[in-house]
Amino acid sequence: MSAHRFLPDFAPGTVWLAGAGPGDPGLLTLHAAHALAEADAVLHDALVSPEILALAGPRARLIPVGKRAGGMRTAQLRINQRLVALARAGLRVLRLKGGDPMVFGRGGEEALALAAAGIFFRIVPGISAGLGATAAAGIPLTHRGLVRSVAFATGHATGAGEPDWAALARGADALVLYMALHRIGAIADALLAAGRPAAEPVAFLAEATTPRQRLHRATLATAAETAAAIPQTDATLIVIGAAVGLEPQLRDWLLPLAPPAPAQTAATA
Amino acid sequence: MSAHRFLPDFAPGTVWLAGAGPGDPGLLTLHAAHALAEADAVLHDALVSPEILALAGPRARLIPVGKRAGGMRTAQLRINQRLVALARAGLRVLRLKGGDPMVFGRGGEEALALAAAGIFFRIVPGISAGLGATAAAGIPLTHRGLVRSVAFATGHATGAGEPDWAALARGADALVLYMALHRIGAIADALLAAGRPAAEPVAFLAEATTPRQRLHRATLATAAETAAAIPQTDATLIVIGAAVGLEPQLRDWLLPLAPPAPAQTAATA
Repeated sequence: MSAHRFLPDFAPGTVWLAGAGPGDPGLLTLHAAHALAEADAVLHDALVSPEILALAGPRARLIPVGKRAGGMRTAQLRINQRLVALARAGLRVLRLKGGDPMVFGRGGEEALALAAAGIFFRIVPGISAGLGATAAAGIPLTHRGLVRSVAFATGHATGAGEPDWAALARGADALVLYMALHRIGAIADALLAAGRPAAEPVAFLAEATTPRQRLHRATLATAAETAAAIPQTDATLIVIGAAVGLEPQLRDWLLPLAPPAPAQTAATA
Repeated sequence: MSAHRFLPDFAPGTVWLAGAGPGDPGLLTLHAAHALAEADAVLHDALVSPEILALAGPRARLIPVGKRAGGMRTAQLRINQRLVALARAGLRVLRLKGGDPMVFGRGGEEALALAAAGIFFRIVPGISAGLGATAAAGIPLTHRGLVRSVAFATGHATGAGEPDWAALARGADALVLYMALHRIGAIADALLAAGRPAAEPVAFLAEATTPRQRLHRATLATAAETAAAIPQTDATLIVIGAAVGLEPQLRDWLLPLAPPAPAQTAATA
């Protein structure tokens, strides 16, 4: 891969903030695969799959830096400091995140810390789950005639408070919710109160693009009930909108990105 | 690349709907690069760069199917028919689109046409310009504390009419506009009328992630004036939101994905 002349060298003392995509190793970019092969240190989230980490070069030190809710801020500061320290030690440092580093991935905080410390860095975008999980599931996210706008929103309350769900209900034809499984009941209620139809289709996508992919279907009216039956994990993506309703028309002819493991595949209607 | 056991075979008589990403060949996914190397026929948009098409295998027939506004619907039907006919002839057919095939890329229409014709297909998501162009420009799209929701919207009016800009003004902390350069004046007015600040930063990103990348900065108040000075092309992405204001803090330490061509690089303050 490094034979491609358009792939820049991974210079010692620099940091690459890269997205690993939604799970399937085939959804790595050429840049990210190259960086994995060349890195001296790989600081990775818990969401980055073993299949992807297996592409790291033999000299790479793999450093898991998954965070738990609660100590998030401290943990993030520690990650920032570690990136700076490793780069100052002259290593090629790869910060590898699930999805895209800049879509609810806190890559911005790490980039600011590196700039403040005077460390050169490169940002390598990745396939965010909102794109990858929906494509793999056969949901044409912005289907023409149905969708003029799609909003990506987080269900995790931050310092800035919650998104204005009533406004998004009117402005976003499709909604993609990250880390929102635990709050979908309240969000669906807010969307219904703002006029979205009770029968509007909802999809829950877990471990999308991997052989363990699971799709659960619901409607806005039944979303909370469906969510209650799904293992609670932040990695489940929720998609709301009429385009979700096209999936049954595509299903029989859509080839999976990764071969399915039938025993573990589930789908509820 | 085809040595990777996680890359599925490109079976004759199937179609892969794949995203080529925003421009830089290094932002191709491993799946897309593999499909380019294996395809018998590559139907590509005008937005797919020559550097990317150069990765096609020696037996591949390159078929440009760029569309012009006006005859869009007829052109789309013809593309659908052509995909079906080439697959029925037993070819490995790659439909390669700029960005992501499902984000304002009409991949859904092609997928429905293939399913209706009984042709097996695979959807390979790509880095949409909204992710790739912003990352390459140093704009942390969902920066924590500033952004809880980001909306991707199209400036091209469709049968469904325009997005509700006033609702998006309230619901979306950041806005990414596709194909909206010719309408940014009216859109900025609608956002301002709904209460967005006149000083809110706006970025215009052209040919992002390529050596020809250009970034023009404005505010909501000056966006129309800035847009008037930019060559009118649908490929210019517009980003609105406070996260755009972080770019100057990152700029000096951000390494480009592709080496810049200094004579062609422009930036306006």
